[in-house]
Amino acid sequence: PAVSVSAVLPAGGSGQRLGGATPKQFCAVQGRPLVSYAVRALERISWISDIIVVVSPENIKTMKTIIEKYDHKRVMVVEGGITRHRSIFNGLKVFAEKEFSSHLLQKPEVVIIHDAVRPFVEEDILSKVVMAAKEHGAAGAIRPLVSTVIASSADGCLDHSLERDRYRASEMPQAFLFDTIYEAYQLCTDYDLDYGTECLHLALKYCKTNAKLIEGTADLWKVTYKRDLYAAESIIKENLSQEVCVITDAKETVAQVGFLLSESLKSQIKVEAVSISQSKNDSHLQNILSGQCYNFIYVNDKKCAIQETQQIVDILEKSDVPLLYPVVLILVHLDMSENNSFSIGMEELTSIKKSARETKRKNILVYGLLIQYK
Amino acid sequence: PAVSVSAVLPAGGSGQRLGGATPKQFCAVQGRPLVSYAVRALERISWISDIIVVVSPENIKTMKTIIEKYDHKRVMVVEGGITRHRSIFNGLKVFAEKEFSSHLLQKPEVVIIHDAVRPFVEEDILSKVVMAAKEHGAAGAIRPLVSTVIASSADGCLDHSLERDRYRASEMPQAFLFDTIYEAYQLCTDYDLDYGTECLHLALKYCKTNAKLIEGTADLWKVTYKRDLYAAESIIKENLSQEVCVITDAKETVAQVGFLLSESLKSQIKVEAVSISQSKNDSHLQNILSGQCYNFIYVNDKKCAIQETQQIVDILEKSDVPLLYPVVLILVHLDMSENNSFSIGMEELTSIKKSARETKRKNILVYGLLIQYK
Repeated sequence: PAVSVSAVLPAGGSGQRLGGATPKQFCAVQGRPLVSYAVRALERISWISDIIVVVSPENIKTMKTIIEKYDHKRVMVVEGGITRHRSIFNGLKVFAEKEFSSHLLQKPEVVIIHDAVRPFVEEDILSKVVMAAKEHGAAGAIRPLVSTVIASSADGCLDHSLERDRYRASEMPQAFLFDTIYEAYQLCTDYDLDYGTECLHLALKYCKTNAKLIEGTADLWKVTYKRDLYAAESIIKENLSQEVCVITDAKETVAQVGFLLSESLKSQIKVEAVSISQSKNDSHLQNILSGQCYNFIYVNDKKCAIQETQQIVDILEKSDVPLLYPVVLILVHLDMSENNSFSIGMEELTSIKKSARETKRKNILVYGLLIQYK
Repeated sequence: PAVSVSAVLPAGGSGQRLGGATPKQFCAVQGRPLVSYAVRALERISWISDIIVVVSPENIKTMKTIIEKYDHKRVMVVEGGITRHRSIFNGLKVFAEKEFSSHLLQKPEVVIIHDAVRPFVEEDILSKVVMAAKEHGAAGAIRPLVSTVIASSADGCLDHSLERDRYRASEMPQAFLFDTIYEAYQLCTDYDLDYGTECLHLALKYCKTNAKLIEGTADLWKVTYKRDLYAAESIIKENLSQEVCVITDAKETVAQVGFLLSESLKSQIKVEAVSISQSKNDSHLQNILSGQCYNFIYVNDKKCAIQETQQIVDILEKSDVPLLYPVVLILVHLDMSENNSFSIGMEELTSIKKSARETKRKNILVYGLLIQYK
């Protein structure tokens, strides 16, 4: 979108409805806190400048650790208030009030407000709400109601039921012209800040801005109950199993084959490409490989890449990913020698086989592929 | 409840929102169709006389197969209409109209209406809605709203948002005085039958009955999307892992030990008790053992119970349960001989060990326990 955009991610909830001690945004799903998935969903979108994560004071350190561990970029942690609205307001202040932040961030034209407990937001819906907010001042994702909504009378009996088709569930993401939502927060009452939850309502009430409503997909739902954590975990697993990470070293022909492979795989499966030599640093490579997927292809032209393979295996083992599910590592050896003779000797083959057998015990399945390449 | 009760379970939905070819109530969760869990949840409650499952014409055969396979009792399959209300109406007719059913069932005082896609309903909430229906004529389970509900204007913008605290989501189960809901269905318009979804609304509109609203637990949610199937599967797995099945033969001392064991385990874990000799029939025993749990304790006083153990192992293997998860079978051998000497010889021990080793390959883990019992 031709507009400057930043995002505020309230992550200060206590998660009472989940029935556990850990707020749900910090619950580990496939070993990684839920909030980290939401941050990643936003940070991978290049046109979002800054991501403000608002957490309660006791979780600031936890959040900073998460950002470091998962190598999140363009993220700032801000201390939240005692309610959702107060937390969002604090997040917005970073762009507007000098005394609030030591390093005032560039005020965006449009600000996205999303939830830390909605890990599956796609670029498409973010782009739609941002464009609609630019035009209408405010916009939010909506979904059809799953259940009939009813009003009860004082004695706990049915007063009336709403016609399901006329109403929608208000979901996230939402987006606003920054000045509009910031003005709404400045004008609204303490009662609004303490008991309200709906940002679209504030924009309507205090800035006369009728938000544009955008039909979202089913994956925008909010992780609220324990069953939602189960569902999130299954969806993440499914996504991971449909991703492959192509690892190459930086040598030109190898990188070229890696690129061609990535391109042709892209129509079938989500592909992440990693160049190994750019990141000799183990911990950096570990961050890239861990939790990304279960499937790896390592393309090389070494006569015997046992040492490099071992490095990748070590990193995968350390990442704890193979604890849960088997990880597949396919070694693609490019034979670029002039003669067509089989270039791997019996000895190398035996040592590769032996190493694969050992690696299998760690739940990492290593396969080899030899390609004659000219 | 001191009232006659039957239940209607509409299972005719097409499951468009799930995005698959199989309607969600027939989707297998841990190898068993979702509707079977809902039927089991109702049939295990002794004070529900008849359970009417209403399915679309093309699924009648499937439903009958499910009832036979999972040994469901007190269940009758009825052909549904083209909408939810028409299906429920068809279900109710079985109790009231001779021409509809060849064997007219006893009309209940109160009828429960539940969903085939809400597999986790507990006796407590069923009992509450039935008692409230007896007193008020109608009653239904409700839940707090997870998202804000909004009304949109004709141009797709926000018109107003509802105050979340004043509204509730209407869930299932619901219960009605049979005569009240049947009258409502007889009086209501074709428009209601074709476009309505809320039974409480019909009772209010046509019988001036304001339903009593009962706060339900989080597990009443409706399986609507694919993520809900994931969640249901995880919850079912969790439940199964927290159940143990105690198997005994009918000999008095053994049955007594089994009973004492069951009683002392009950405070820790859900216990199912099965007596093996009452069901020499393999297929009956298979129905009892399959899909109930992953944990079995077999109490016996045989000198060498290899043959009986093998029978149990065979049944478990056939049930496909160990395909997904390891099944644990603990053999408790009661030594009731007078002398205190170790009564299992080296030979028996070796053969038990050997058989356990073989069984382990089938993902069934057999452990043995020898107890001196006087």
